[in-house]
Amino acid sequence: MHGTNTKPKVVIIGAGFGGLWAARALAGQPVDVTVVDRNNYHTFLALLYQVAAAELSAEDIAYPVRSIFRKNRNIQFMLAHAQRIDLANKRLETDNGKLDYDYLIVATGSVSATFGVEGVEEHSYFLKTLEEAVALKNHIICCFEAASREVDEDKIKELLTFVIVGGGATGVEYAGALSELIHGPLVRDYPGIDFSQVRIILLEAAGHLVAAMPENLRDYTAGRLGRMGIDVRLKTTVAEVTPDKVIVRTQSEKPRSSPAGFIETKTVVWTAGVRGEELPDASGIVVARNGCVPVTPTLQAAGHPDVYVIGDLAAISEEGLILPMVAQVAMQSGAQAAKNIVFQLSGKQPQRFCYRDRGSMIAIGRKAAGVAIGRRTFRGFVAWIMWLVIHLANLIGFRNRLMVLTNWAWDYLLYERAVRFVFPSTMPADSRLRSCARAFPEEKI
Amino acid sequence: MHGTNTKPKVVIIGAGFGGLWAARALAGQPVDVTVVDRNNYHTFLALLYQVAAAELSAEDIAYPVRSIFRKNRNIQFMLAHAQRIDLANKRLETDNGKLDYDYLIVATGSVSATFGVEGVEEHSYFLKTLEEAVALKNHIICCFEAASREVDEDKIKELLTFVIVGGGATGVEYAGALSELIHGPLVRDYPGIDFSQVRIILLEAAGHLVAAMPENLRDYTAGRLGRMGIDVRLKTTVAEVTPDKVIVRTQSEKPRSSPAGFIETKTVVWTAGVRGEELPDASGIVVARNGCVPVTPTLQAAGHPDVYVIGDLAAISEEGLILPMVAQVAMQSGAQAAKNIVFQLSGKQPQRFCYRDRGSMIAIGRKAAGVAIGRRTFRGFVAWIMWLVIHLANLIGFRNRLMVLTNWAWDYLLYERAVRFVFPSTMPADSRLRSCARAFPEEKI
Repeated sequence: MHGTNTKPKVVIIGAGFGGLWAARALAGQPVDVTVVDRNNYHTFLALLYQVAAAELSAEDIAYPVRSIFRKNRNIQFMLAHAQRIDLANKRLETDNGKLDYDYLIVATGSVSATFGVEGVEEHSYFLKTLEEAVALKNHIICCFEAASREVDEDKIKELLTFVIVGGGATGVEYAGALSELIHGPLVRDYPGIDFSQVRIILLEAAGHLVAAMPENLRDYTAGRLGRMGIDVRLKTTVAEVTPDKVIVRTQSEKPRSSPAGFIETKTVVWTAGVRGEELPDASGIVVARNGCVPVTPTLQAAGHPDVYVIGDLAAISEEGLILPMVAQVAMQSGAQAAKNIVFQLSGKQPQRFCYRDRGSMIAIGRKAAGVAIGRRTFRGFVAWIMWLVIHLANLIGFRNRLMVLTNWAWDYLLYERAVRFVFPSTMPADSRLRSCARAFPEEKI
Repeated sequence: MHGTNTKPKVVIIGAGFGGLWAARALAGQPVDVTVVDRNNYHTFLALLYQVAAAELSAEDIAYPVRSIFRKNRNIQFMLAHAQRIDLANKRLETDNGKLDYDYLIVATGSVSATFGVEGVEEHSYFLKTLEEAVALKNHIICCFEAASREVDEDKIKELLTFVIVGGGATGVEYAGALSELIHGPLVRDYPGIDFSQVRIILLEAAGHLVAAMPENLRDYTAGRLGRMGIDVRLKTTVAEVTPDKVIVRTQSEKPRSSPAGFIETKTVVWTAGVRGEELPDASGIVVARNGCVPVTPTLQAAGHPDVYVIGDLAAISEEGLILPMVAQVAMQSGAQAAKNIVFQLSGKQPQRFCYRDRGSMIAIGRKAAGVAIGRRTFRGFVAWIMWLVIHLANLIGFRNRLMVLTNWAWDYLLYERAVRFVFPSTMPADSRLRSCARAFPEEKI
């Protein structure tokens, strides 16, 4: 930020896949790029659930943003939390000062949506940030620690019941990974606990899991989860979450009758919904009901040709459908937005964005995954190897790949997880980041 | 804690080297052992400074206690914070309930001592726990982030001045590692910063560094630090620490005259003193001025033949000298205390503890270490290799060794550090665990 220069300024908000791919596409172009993020690292969100399952450490799936752009002299990084876009003055306001822009790429992604269901915000765990994943892992370990010293059978059952809400990719992948954590390493760690009491319950409002996958992979997923002992409850919604139970409603065959029930648990993991991050809305940009920004086919916000919105935050219509919130859309739309800015700078028209669907995949557990590419599907061991290779390839940094590969080898070959400890033990004691000693004050002997 | 049994109960407080070696020595003996620790992991404190220098991640030097004793049926673990020893009723009170004992081994170690110097507690960073090491690392990175967006030359200088108080092993090793972090990876990360402004200042009250080492290694250490550009100030004490400076007094040649000065800095790392942890004092056990427990030659607390005190917490006299607070003393005294309990149980007399000094070592930086074994000393590359091998061997867990070795290879061969990110970004905003955004509110542009 020292000195002056006359190159056009591009500000990119967010260092997720969208922001990074946009910045990469602007490397060496005649613009000055500043990437703004509230964290100084990029997070590989696809493996977040493995951090929450004590399989990977937080460091393994994070990469310092400054290192990524070390060799790109026209790309700077600024550690700051974007608070408001001053559209009239073309200026971004952050908690670390203001930043002028000529072009803006908004890539702040998505956040958890609770749909206003009572108690979810206060009493659930989430899986959208590295902090949340670590807090959830700590909590799981703490449940077993508390169960190991508990004598009341009902309380033990409550501590060993884990409810995951949402049968999308995150919910399914976490359910599988949690089951393998518990029935592998934790069985050996807690000889005093009766593991037949452990219940993992996966709740899904729709009639099937992983709606985005082809039907045969949906069936495969449900079958694998069942064989792992996971209690999948379809057509079941959450009415309320309290500190020690979740109140559910199951849609019965008869319409308009939905009997309520409850599950006693200390652990509700909410993966049931996401919405656009709040920056555009807070800045007066028109957003859809889910907080996402409906963009032009060229990825600009309506009425703001200098503001591009990409990735999860953008509602990109193609053939009447909104593109899904996946990494591929983020990467491709990020690169397209960057190209369009270069077009605009050279007096040309920005180009229409065309999404190339490279397929989707889901990992249920060890040697069990589903992959859909075009009309072809793969499942089981072959799909699992494809899943491993593609996820390793998408990690940023050779060292991270090596570390993840080592941890996977440990897990898959030795059935061992390395990062089963509660750290930091001084995490704030709020609902989502609480630590062991403070989590269960009422359980004291 | 389920069921009843009649074997004598041994409670070990603390899962450091002392506690672990005591527990190991009791494996398979006719006793029921419970290891109590406030963390569910053992920390390898000798490499803590490398966590604070972004060289290793916290996970690399921690190991879950339950895994260590998985195969030992007579050893249990309890995650709890010991609060008071009820000596009369032979019962340990913790934040997770009470625990009866027949024999107790107190191994809670040492904590930082500020000697009442004003402002140290509030405005310094410490290097005694994993949380403190991570907080210090985060703070160092944040200083560079803040400096990169600062325009005021005085503030930049303040942000880039790092003061380490205490010229013992921890202070020296951290000074070296910090210098290598800054002049290696950080130079490449922050092209906008003038690194000639960086100052690392090491303050020591005595007339030389690393007092415990032989004179030729002391000289070698001072020489290496000087060549790394570290400003070593001997005979200098800290009078006060404030949020943006440290007030120092340097002992001049003339007696009774000590001119005061100050160093403007945002970073004071306090490694100048340690004292015994407070549990014995809080429980009515007689302690010395530094909080340590003077023990009998058989390692028992005076007047309490059922209470053993070991490691850093014990003041063990040998030939009129108190043994130093080092891992070797902790391991050996832990094993001896365990043996003595077995002797007592079989009606024999506990044996006198005999310390076998296996030497000492210090690492100043890449290819630079000093090792003293008996009357022999080694320095430079050979000593550094010895240091690497011995530290790897003392790490618990093959995976941790592999991870540390990988990180070292990265660092020493590629001059790269992997864990340069600020996480968790939601750490509590108190003096020692503050995070980036909150650390420097006044520096906002």
